[in-house]
Amino acid sequence: MKLKNDMQLFFAEKIEGETAFLSETESRHCLKVLRKKEGDCLQVTDGRGICYTGELFIIKKRLAAIGKLAVVDQQERRHPLLSLAIAPTKNNSRLEWLLEKAVEIGLDELQPFVSKHSERRKINERRLSDIAVSAMKQSGRYQLPEIQPLVKLEDLLDSQIDGKVMNLVGSQSSDMDISEIDLSGKNKIRLFIGPEGDFSEEEWSLMHQKDFVFVNLGNFRLRTETAGMVGVTLINSLINKI
Amino acid sequence: MKLKNDMQLFFAEKIEGETAFLSETESRHCLKVLRKKEGDCLQVTDGRGICYTGELFIIKKRLAAIGKLAVVDQQERRHPLLSLAIAPTKNNSRLEWLLEKAVEIGLDELQPFVSKHSERRKINERRLSDIAVSAMKQSGRYQLPEIQPLVKLEDLLDSQIDGKVMNLVGSQSSDMDISEIDLSGKNKIRLFIGPEGDFSEEEWSLMHQKDFVFVNLGNFRLRTETAGMVGVTLINSLINKI
Repeated sequence: MKLKNDMQLFFAEKIEGETAFLSETESRHCLKVLRKKEGDCLQVTDGRGICYTGELFIIKKRLAAIGKLAVVDQQERRHPLLSLAIAPTKNNSRLEWLLEKAVEIGLDELQPFVSKHSERRKINERRLSDIAVSAMKQSGRYQLPEIQPLVKLEDLLDSQIDGKVMNLVGSQSSDMDISEIDLSGKNKIRLFIGPEGDFSEEEWSLMHQKDFVFVNLGNFRLRTETAGMVGVTLINSLINKI
Repeated sequence: MKLKNDMQLFFAEKIEGETAFLSETESRHCLKVLRKKEGDCLQVTDGRGICYTGELFIIKKRLAAIGKLAVVDQQERRHPLLSLAIAPTKNNSRLEWLLEKAVEIGLDELQPFVSKHSERRKINERRLSDIAVSAMKQSGRYQLPEIQPLVKLEDLLDSQIDGKVMNLVGSQSSDMDISEIDLSGKNKIRLFIGPEGDFSEEEWSLMHQKDFVFVNLGNFRLRTETAGMVGVTLINSLINKI
């Protein structure tokens, strides 16, 4: 499935005038791993929809930049945005692969939360950001998904009063198929996936009160990260049809 | 998302009369890891749709069986069956997690193949079978997906003359959405996913001649295992609507 890509894609958060400044991580990847040389022609994205080509130059020993930028391609942000609110898995690597896959597919935002039965109450935001950057580049996207800070589920539920956000929650007892959902007038679709130990009774009840839409994700019992993956795939497919 | 399950589910290939004989692996898991004792009440599936309860007894030191079986639940095989034909990934663990997820979702068959640009030309069938068993039990399924032996893609393509098998292939240049496919009259839907280096020109051309349906799996460039995952999720969702 991987298309041939003649030029490597880099990411630069900081673009000033005609110059994109690579971070230390991106510079190391560019200079040490891929052994790019001054004057090489590279592609770089700002993670906000634009892809440029330009020429590599070295600012100092371990820091690279890409100059003489010219826009070569653009991607508009799709609407509605696709957000995944999920309790981090006990095993870090399961959340990490979910993020990698979800970014390839089209995720716009990851919102980790801690709920009553969460087994993991800390995340490595920096590592998740690096995975998002890497998956964005690998999949040829120019939009970098946002990794939100970890919050308490109750705080997240309290803040949900925007009528343009549609909140879905994966529930095995629901018969509602994601393909039946009406996305019109929404600017964000947020899917909530509970922790390995499931949401608590109070949490389910609060989501009911907040008019969450309970959606079915399949016939069988899914692991947390599989449920996230299935939900993101099905909602993404629905957004693509708009 | 994980439901509470009061009783652990085991798998036994060999069931004779009222007794299910656990394999060495299942016996070890039962006796050493879960520390089950003689007389404990357990659930066991034959992987062909039936779930029994019964009483644990020990045949000899490391071999367990479950006796006094009584059927407690059944799952019919869905039709059409969902088969994934895929080139094993260079990195084994990527194929392994794809299999785990695909089994949780509803996969019925994995058909690994070697094609012109395949980087990996061997698989560990035993390990894949163990993963399939583990994912089946974890997801509460009673149907064990089949892991077919690794074959050459050309041999697989030569053998496709059964009109009841619909062959799909993931292709980024296709506009065909999986949700538009008509599954009626088919008894198997098989999705082909190419290797990291993509199918060769000859392979694409052969699939065209064989009336394969080229389907789009999304907007961005997907890794082999992500493409497999997305395809399985979307086809599974379509089968569930029949």
